[in-house]
Amino acid sequence: MLDKLKKIVFEANQLLPKYKMVTFTWGNVSGIDREKGLIVIKPSGVDYDNMKADDMVVVDLNGKVVEGDYNPSSDTDTHIELYKACADIGGIVHTHSRYATSWAQSCQDIPALGTTHADDFYGPIPCTRAMTKEEIAGSYEKETGKVIVETFKKRKIKMTDIPGVLVYSHGPFAWDEDPLKAVKKAVILEEVAFMAYHTVTLTGKKSSMQQELLDKHYLRKHGANAYYGQKK
Amino acid sequence: MLDKLKKIVFEANQLLPKYKMVTFTWGNVSGIDREKGLIVIKPSGVDYDNMKADDMVVVDLNGKVVEGDYNPSSDTDTHIELYKACADIGGIVHTHSRYATSWAQSCQDIPALGTTHADDFYGPIPCTRAMTKEEIAGSYEKETGKVIVETFKKRKIKMTDIPGVLVYSHGPFAWDEDPLKAVKKAVILEEVAFMAYHTVTLTGKKSSMQQELLDKHYLRKHGANAYYGQKK
Amino acid sequence: MLDKLKKIVFEANQLLPKYKMVTFTWGNVSGIDREKGLIVIKPSGVDYDNMKADDMVVVDLNGKVVEGDYNPSSDTDTHIELYKACADIGGIVHTHSRYATSWAQSCQDIPALGTTHADDFYGPIPCTRAMTKEEIAGSYEKETGKVIVETFKKRKIKMTDIPGVLVYSHGPFAWDEDPLKAVKKAVILEEVAFMAYHTVTLTGKKSSMQQELLDKHYLRKHGANAYYGQKK
Amino acid sequence: MLDKLKKIVFEANQLLPKYKMVTFTWGNVSGIDREKGLIVIKPSGVDYDNMKADDMVVVDLNGKVVEGDYNPSSDTDTHIELYKACADIGGIVHTHSRYATSWAQSCQDIPALGTTHADDFYGPIPCTRAMTKEEIAGSYEKETGKVIVETFKKRKIKMTDIPGVLVYSHGPFAWDEDPLKAVKKAVILEEVAFMAYHTVTLTGKKSSMQQELLDKHYLRKHGANAYYGQKK
Repeated sequence: MLDKLKKIVFEANQLLPKYKMVTFTWGNVSGIDREKGLIVIKPSGVDYDNMKADDMVVVDLNGKVVEGDYNPSSDTDTHIELYKACADIGGIVHTHSRYATSWAQSCQDIPALGTTHADDFYGPIPCTRAMTKEEIAGSYEKETGKVIVETFKKRKIKMTDIPGVLVYSHGPFAWDEDPLKAVKKAVILEEVAFMAYHTVTLTGKKSSMQQELLDKHYLRKHGANAYYGQKK
Repeated sequence: MLDKLKKIVFEANQLLPKYKMVTFTWGNVSGIDREKGLIVIKPSGVDYDNMKADDMVVVDLNGKVVEGDYNPSSDTDTHIELYKACADIGGIVHTHSRYATSWAQSCQDIPALGTTHADDFYGPIPCTRAMTKEEIAGSYEKETGKVIVETFKKRKIKMTDIPGVLVYSHGPFAWDEDPLKAVKKAVILEEVAFMAYHTVTLTGKKSSMQQELLDKHYLRKHGANAYYGQKK
Repeated sequence: MLDKLKKIVFEANQLLPKYKMVTFTWGNVSGIDREKGLIVIKPSGVDYDNMKADDMVVVDLNGKVVEGDYNPSSDTDTHIELYKACADIGGIVHTHSRYATSWAQSCQDIPALGTTHADDFYGPIPCTRAMTKEEIAGSYEKETGKVIVETFKKRKIKMTDIPGVLVYSHGPFAWDEDPLKAVKKAVILEEVAFMAYHTVTLTGKKSSMQQELLDKHYLRKHGANAYYGQKK
Repeated sequence: MLDKLKKIVFEANQLLPKYKMVTFTWGNVSGIDREKGLIVIKPSGVDYDNMKADDMVVVDLNGKVVEGDYNPSSDTDTHIELYKACADIGGIVHTHSRYATSWAQSCQDIPALGTTHADDFYGPIPCTRAMTKEEIAGSYEKETGKVIVETFKKRKIKMTDIPGVLVYSHGPFAWDEDPLKAVKKAVILEEVAFMAYHTVTLTGKKSSMQQELLDKHYLRKHGANAYYGQKK
């Protein structure tokens, strides 16, 4: 079932250690088949070294395991909420990558400070609010997804314009139209977090870059008038 | 004698350079056979590259060498105090890993700032008090172990709930039920130290994460209701 | 056409991932044939792994593609302005290397703080001014080049004396008499940016090194009385 | 001539890139034959990749080249002053390693903040004073050596007790009884510089560790009562 997607999700998961985005098993990638309404995701707590494409777990949009010998990632319910909230998301990545997690622990947005940021994130990367006791005590992973979705709605941000988020006191999620592109966004988020850390500690302030430069760089790569890269 | 444990302790020691936890010979792992009351530990000042499983040294709980061609690690007496204080400890690691040592030199606890911390350490990672002149001039390594044990007792922390410590002006120790798991805890302690350094220097404050989020993440992985990973 | 220069520019581009100067495709190197008035540059958005020397694009000094199957780097017009402004430049590098970009995002010059800096950069590495809305909305990449040139003119710095610059809220450019040497300057700029970051955050001040030490080290390696290295 | 020493000095130089202590050619190691009064040192500006043991240059204690096809390191005269000042030094290393150089640029001593420091450096690692215009304009490299020697004399430090120094606005030198051990001291100096940077930026203060702990750790490894490692 979903052999092709399993292979892609498996490969995307293997990129996490390659890009030094994970320690031990601290990360997971999923992908969705929108037609079938099924998600393929990494099994929980399994080492990247010993994992095979066939170990990927298939779940439906209620989190029910449809196929697989393992438990799915404990973060599966968070992924599901994001897939449900935005039809354009085809792949999701969660890691505890070092600089993005340090920002998440600081409970602040990553401000847009330069063109590296602007090329892929059209504004500050938001940090969610603290979750309530009830949310934490309840369906925690599902509530985590809901608080991410709430953050984008309240701030009127399209999830495709800023394809990543910091979960308060936790760490980053990133997404894109497929799992491999989502990993790329996670790597860029980490790179942007690195640069923002060093810029902020160097200057002591967090004032954003010029809006027109942010527009220019984001739109140079995205939308109808993009001209970066090769025509397709 | 204790060939199986020697092999495990040897392998655990070899993980230290693999995980970039040590410079030169600055680290050691031990394991205990509780039935026989014997500890297997790395020899002192021997290079990881040239070490064999047979070079591991066997000592009893008084620090007397029972078998081995080399002197045991100079930190052996510290390990012994920890084994004596907590019957659930099966393996101990000492390193001078970079970020954990920087925190130890700052003579402060590592505050619990996020879920990466909470997943494995159920509260701040304590820094011991300064040792007295008498303790330093006396059986220094044994006294180091005693001051670690004192720290956990005074603060009423179970050594299994927070499986690591910073020794004041020195560096970290970590432990778990066996030597390989103890190395994993040492790596996580270093990762947590990295993130806490960057969070604190970014925000200028060290306020702890929400208690309920700390509970949630620790208990998601530990105890009767844990649900992370695969059933065993 | 220009097969030898294409090979050199290709090799220079391949050095960027080797020296860990780029993430994904975030960098480009060009070289110029002054007699023919033609520039060879990396194609836009193409992976370093899959690139061949023949994929390099040839453009003239108006930015018109003379040969090549791909679009040239989106930064081509910036390179052209620098080649036009200084006849001694034979190769140019643009990257988003981590520390230099963090400085560019801080919108400050990198002060000359030690002999590592002085050996290759004869004074602070300038950060350009913010670009105007009109410049950003116009021929942005060309205007970026013009604002770099303006920076050196206004400050009366020879581009050969300080072979690098930080573009405001963006990142570094570096250059030298040929593409391979230009990559070396980009690596040194990154190294200098690393050290300056740590020196400034350690001391809280940015006072420059002694002028006579700056002179000594720069002139030990450059000009008629240089004595570093081997006679040629 | 001096084939054995050349081989050792060559090997010691090759350790610098192995331990990531150098960028390009920014480092050099020398060794001395005290009986013959001759020094073997790396040639100036030659790549580590293309260097052979036979390329090492032999100079006398006046800096005159006795054998070798290349110019000796431009820092040769600094090495000579250190060999002349302390008969127990058998090998010397100069690098621009990242953290030690950042401290040298901050023009401050590296305070003794923990046992990693105390194990090899018996007190703060001194930073030399600023050199005068006359010293810089004169025999600069020789004067650099003299200001290092002056620093140890004025502060009444034995060069064997603190086997390293930061040259003001420049970078570190380290030494030991032979070239290979000197490289090890240079690596430790860099490690200590890393930890001190992070401790100081974390706490905002630079108060030294307890004197008795400094004594304990240094003397655990050095002198008549040392007990670290294996008996020889």
